Amino acid sequence: MRSEILEQPRAWQRLLSAGWEAVASAARLVRDQEPAQVVLLARGSSDNAAVYGQYLMQTSLKLPTTLATPSTHTILGAGAASFPRHALVLAVSQSGASADLIQTLVAARSAGCLTMSITNDPDSPLAQEADAHIPLLAGPERSVAATKTYTTELLALRMLTAAVASAERPTYEELQPAEQVLRAAQEACSELAQRLAGVQRMLVVGRGYSYASAREAALKLMETSYLMTQGLSAADAKHGPIAVLDPDTPLLAFASRGPTSASVASVVDAARAAGAPVEVIGDGAIAGDSLPALLPPGLAPEVVPLLEILPGQLFALELALQRGNDPDRPRGLSKVTSTT
Amino acid sequence: MRSEILEQPRAWQRLLSAGWEAVASAARLVRDQEPAQVVLLARGSSDNAAVYGQYLMQTSLKLPTTLATPSTHTILGAGAASFPRHALVLAVSQSGASADLIQTLVAARSAGCLTMSITNDPDSPLAQEADAHIPLLAGPERSVAATKTYTTELLALRMLTAAVASAERPTYEELQPAEQVLRAAQEACSELAQRLAGVQRMLVVGRGYSYASAREAALKLMETSYLMTQGLSAADAKHGPIAVLDPDTPLLAFASRGPTSASVASVVDAARAAGAPVEVIGDGAIAGDSLPALLPPGLAPEVVPLLEILPGQLFALELALQRGNDPDRPRGLSKVTSTT
Repeated sequence: MRSEILEQPRAWQRLLSAGWEAVASAARLVRDQEPAQVVLLARGSSDNAAVYGQYLMQTSLKLPTTLATPSTHTILGAGAASFPRHALVLAVSQSGASADLIQTLVAARSAGCLTMSITNDPDSPLAQEADAHIPLLAGPERSVAATKTYTTELLALRMLTAAVASAERPTYEELQPAEQVLRAAQEACSELAQRLAGVQRMLVVGRGYSYASAREAALKLMETSYLMTQGLSAADAKHGPIAVLDPDTPLLAFASRGPTSASVASVVDAARAAGAPVEVIGDGAIAGDSLPALLPPGLAPEVVPLLEILPGQLFALELALQRGNDPDRPRGLSKVTSTT
Repeated sequence: MRSEILEQPRAWQRLLSAGWEAVASAARLVRDQEPAQVVLLARGSSDNAAVYGQYLMQTSLKLPTTLATPSTHTILGAGAASFPRHALVLAVSQSGASADLIQTLVAARSAGCLTMSITNDPDSPLAQEADAHIPLLAGPERSVAATKTYTTELLALRMLTAAVASAERPTYEELQPAEQVLRAAQEACSELAQRLAGVQRMLVVGRGYSYASAREAALKLMETSYLMTQGLSAADAKHGPIAVLDPDTPLLAFASRGPTSASVASVVDAARAAGAPVEVIGDGAIAGDSLPALLPPGLAPEVVPLLEILPGQLFALELALQRGNDPDRPRGLSKVTSTT
């Protein structure tokens, strides 16, 4: 897991160069067919990447973008009419092999939707069944907890969005701060894991683009450290869940400067009032108890999720090690999960 | 909270009779304007009710139905084009007063969407701003944790869906088992709360229509008992979160006979393998450790969520009392939460 976390900048560089052709070709299809909206189809970490895609596409492309509910198609028989007309259905999956996603994508294609997939396995059913496929080119991911496939999914969604908008092609330059973030985060997250070694529960929040980061960090902490936690939008957290905060239940917040930081700050205030420890992963916009500002200021908001999840991944890894867990082989899980 | 839980059958009878006119008038608007899809807009417990609405409308009306992401409208400036064309935007809210929901509904109306709201306050901004309003008629809800407004929201969504489909008008008859469920659940949930008095973490799952119940039960447990938990689709649980299950982290599953029970059963199997206590709220389709079958067999799947949440509410209440918490006034929360 550590080596896969650390190789992410290299994986991004590979996708930015070798993946552009597939992205541009998928984007041409989108521009030709002009779908009226986008439906994202995913599970687990990829579903968290899809949440980023949902916010990005709505904001940048002004396209209604939503998340599919596979069971309505695979179990409850909602049928073809429950896909929106003129939709792009875009599956995001590391393995490309979950039965419910394959069945839903195939149903969407039969219903006349344009279908695409983003996977790390170009031979997988999701790659083969879609009208266009974008490979993550992340190389084999051996750790059960997804790290480099999560961030390459974010990057693929960003590249596709830029290509559809005919915006400037993303380059590695905007992501380069990752190298400094990884260097600084390794020590900081190891110290944080020692500090919070005994913690059994945590609330994780973000807002806007960083809602995806809160969900993904919470999932990593559940998978590798067996922490009970939930990743929430800062707004949803205020509608009830903040009641769990207490001196034994820290808040982990993702917040950098920008229009969403006030919303996160109000949850931080609630945590302080409850006597809960507060840790913030961000650029220093909001001060937490111990983590320094790990991100540089002034990042584009759509770039922040790629960088802020790095400390989240490292914290989950270090906490697992601190507790004697094997982060590469979490209990009860296997690398490919297929649900129906 | 207890009296509001117990008065739910009466509140449903009131809504079924006195609320039908508003429902029928809203449904006429829908049939006249023929929206191509539905966007639900909600927070907290009402957001869980919206999840039920999402599954119900997709399955029964074959209409694409999705959940709004308010921050893309209120903070990130996604603009009018990010609402789907020819959409019904339907806000669900106890208070009708959260700033982000009001702002998003008004933006949707300006974008040409048909707008509706379901609230417990006909004088609230969400009630006033929408093209049509369905009142919950639940009477004042004094406990901070929503109970009777949650289930009347479910019922209002069911009534609206039936009216739009010109299907048979729902009657109290199908809901009448609630009285027996409440009687049986009071003792069973009190015993369960004693059994699990010391538990600090829990995973809650359901699938299909019961995914909403898993989310809502988890939220009640967070709000009143300060348990750290998350309500997940059984499929999403398998993509990582089941790793948290252990002898101190029980699984609470919602499962009744039907096409989704196999999916929940596979999470129950994972919990057993992890040595986690398993409790099941349902009709006996799957056996848990101690709770008896609290629901009668043979319920219509869209009726199950109204009945199965009753033991969930009572369990949250009893667990709070067992721990010396005041379930009517949870720490850190107030009745009306307004987020931006």
